[in-house]
Amino acid sequence: MTEREFDLIRRLAPFLAQDGDGLIVGHGDDAAVVEVGGRGVCIAVDVLVEGVHFRRDLSSLGDVGWKAVAVNVSDIAAMGAAPTVAVVGLCRPSDVPAADVEALYAGMDEACRRWGLRLVGGDTVAADALALSVTVLGDVDVARAVRRSGASPGERLLVVGTLGGPAAALAQDRKGLQPDELLLALHRRPEAHVEAGGRLAELGATAMIDVSDGLGADLGHVCAASDVSATVHADALPVADGVVAAAIALGRDPLDFVCGGGDDYALLAAVPGDRAQAIAADVGGMVVGEVGQGPPATRLLLADGSTRDLAGLGWDHYRPEPA
Amino acid sequence: MTEREFDLIRRLAPFLAQDGDGLIVGHGDDAAVVEVGGRGVCIAVDVLVEGVHFRRDLSSLGDVGWKAVAVNVSDIAAMGAAPTVAVVGLCRPSDVPAADVEALYAGMDEACRRWGLRLVGGDTVAADALALSVTVLGDVDVARAVRRSGASPGERLLVVGTLGGPAAALAQDRKGLQPDELLLALHRRPEAHVEAGGRLAELGATAMIDVSDGLGADLGHVCAASDVSATVHADALPVADGVVAAAIALGRDPLDFVCGGGDDYALLAAVPGDRAQAIAADVGGMVVGEVGQGPPATRLLLADGSTRDLAGLGWDHYRPEPA
Repeated sequence: MTEREFDLIRRLAPFLAQDGDGLIVGHGDDAAVVEVGGRGVCIAVDVLVEGVHFRRDLSSLGDVGWKAVAVNVSDIAAMGAAPTVAVVGLCRPSDVPAADVEALYAGMDEACRRWGLRLVGGDTVAADALALSVTVLGDVDVARAVRRSGASPGERLLVVGTLGGPAAALAQDRKGLQPDELLLALHRRPEAHVEAGGRLAELGATAMIDVSDGLGADLGHVCAASDVSATVHADALPVADGVVAAAIALGRDPLDFVCGGGDDYALLAAVPGDRAQAIAADVGGMVVGEVGQGPPATRLLLADGSTRDLAGLGWDHYRPEPA
Repeated sequence: MTEREFDLIRRLAPFLAQDGDGLIVGHGDDAAVVEVGGRGVCIAVDVLVEGVHFRRDLSSLGDVGWKAVAVNVSDIAAMGAAPTVAVVGLCRPSDVPAADVEALYAGMDEACRRWGLRLVGGDTVAADALALSVTVLGDVDVARAVRRSGASPGERLLVVGTLGGPAAALAQDRKGLQPDELLLALHRRPEAHVEAGGRLAELGATAMIDVSDGLGADLGHVCAASDVSATVHADALPVADGVVAAAIALGRDPLDFVCGGGDDYALLAAVPGDRAQAIAADVGGMVVGEVGQGPPATRLLLADGSTRDLAGLGWDHYRPEPA
């Protein structure tokens, strides 16, 4: 997180509701959770903007619609919740004809069908830039909502999904290469791990987050919220197929993509140490490291026994801004 | 509604959930309603874009934040529901410094305090245009959610709030005049009629909508959804203070602002004819007309006994778009 991002978050904090007073989970987790009739209603919002989060030469508008739903469903999954409904606020430039808006909605519809939620409302307005703000609601047992803050020393870290694919595809593109189709597909249409998220909550995950900013940054969020440190084993990470080959061809360290790339929408969870392997097998995940005593710190342990600081890796959502 | 808007709505309809199957109210009303633990959860989304819905020379960013919450709270009120929480997706251009984002959030916070809801999450992303997509949730007794479609012949029409103020202010501005402060205030910081909406639901309102597109257009939506016609008495309409004087000075018909202006966020409801005056007194509203047999049609009855077609009046959210 940059100094400027931190400053903004500090300025806005007084206006955002924290936990308590009917709010089960306030601002600052993957999704907020409020209680309604004894159930937990999760609320996640994510905005995708053309040129910042997607490009129309790399993604179809169907892909963009899919992704706008998927990234929010991933936040819902990271609470251990099941997505239920979505609404969309769409900023539509004049160069986007009705057929393209239809394609975008068709992509949202595909994603909604994939994860069993329904699109129940939308507001489309004229604007100069193409942007979608999708809000997804989810349903969770109040006692089972998994936050970022529950990890304890002695627990193990587990990842469901793969890492590094989208970052490798975009690195190929930045070098003027045609991105590998397999890697590009992960950028275009990420999977959200809804079933695994719900199962992890059932099986006693103590903390969970979805990997959107990069493993290093998101593990850092868990460590900060839980006041713990964490060690990740480089050789245990679920690297997306093709990432290592792409990195070698680009003369890059694959770990930059795997730990610092972002856009992965894998789930990262802390689970009890004695049941970690069984839980990983159950949800189709990998045990990738351990939780240690605080203060918050994230460490990557390499195969040769050396370590690397994971902090500072991770994608910064902000383009440079003026003072 | 223009031909092009109608075409877009027709194209998107297959992707938007309709009523039934756990959905109490689907797409196409002021807000969707889903059932959670026996309660109705209302969901409304509205996007405000700079240059389309607000201008920074007419509104402060605090005003913009207030309005982004208010217009959604108004949708929730029009279902007879009480607003509970909000989330915001913010597109932030590089010329908006952190202090301005803070002012925008402070305005949202003021509106949230005004109507007893809480801001529980936000996503701020870099973009070329300033836009806010706010989603507000509301709580309603499942049996009491008031739709647009329940009006019947013989009922009376009731308006809570005033009409014409924002349109008159913008008409003054377009003529190069300094808008009246009182009128401009209605554009900058609209009121949402939450208490009246809830009370109307309790007292048996059969149909309700918030007047955002203009009385003519929004009454048309109620008539279309309910398959009824409606007659409104021009001399019964609650015209905002200053509108008539502004219209005369501009050489305009005040009814253009009152019936076709939009941005009013008054509530328009159909109520049983025999209790209409009592209900109006209870909620601080005005009885403005009657519901008649279908087919859908809207008629404005003038003091001299002549009538005018209300259809076609109303603000079109769209700027001209290319083919």
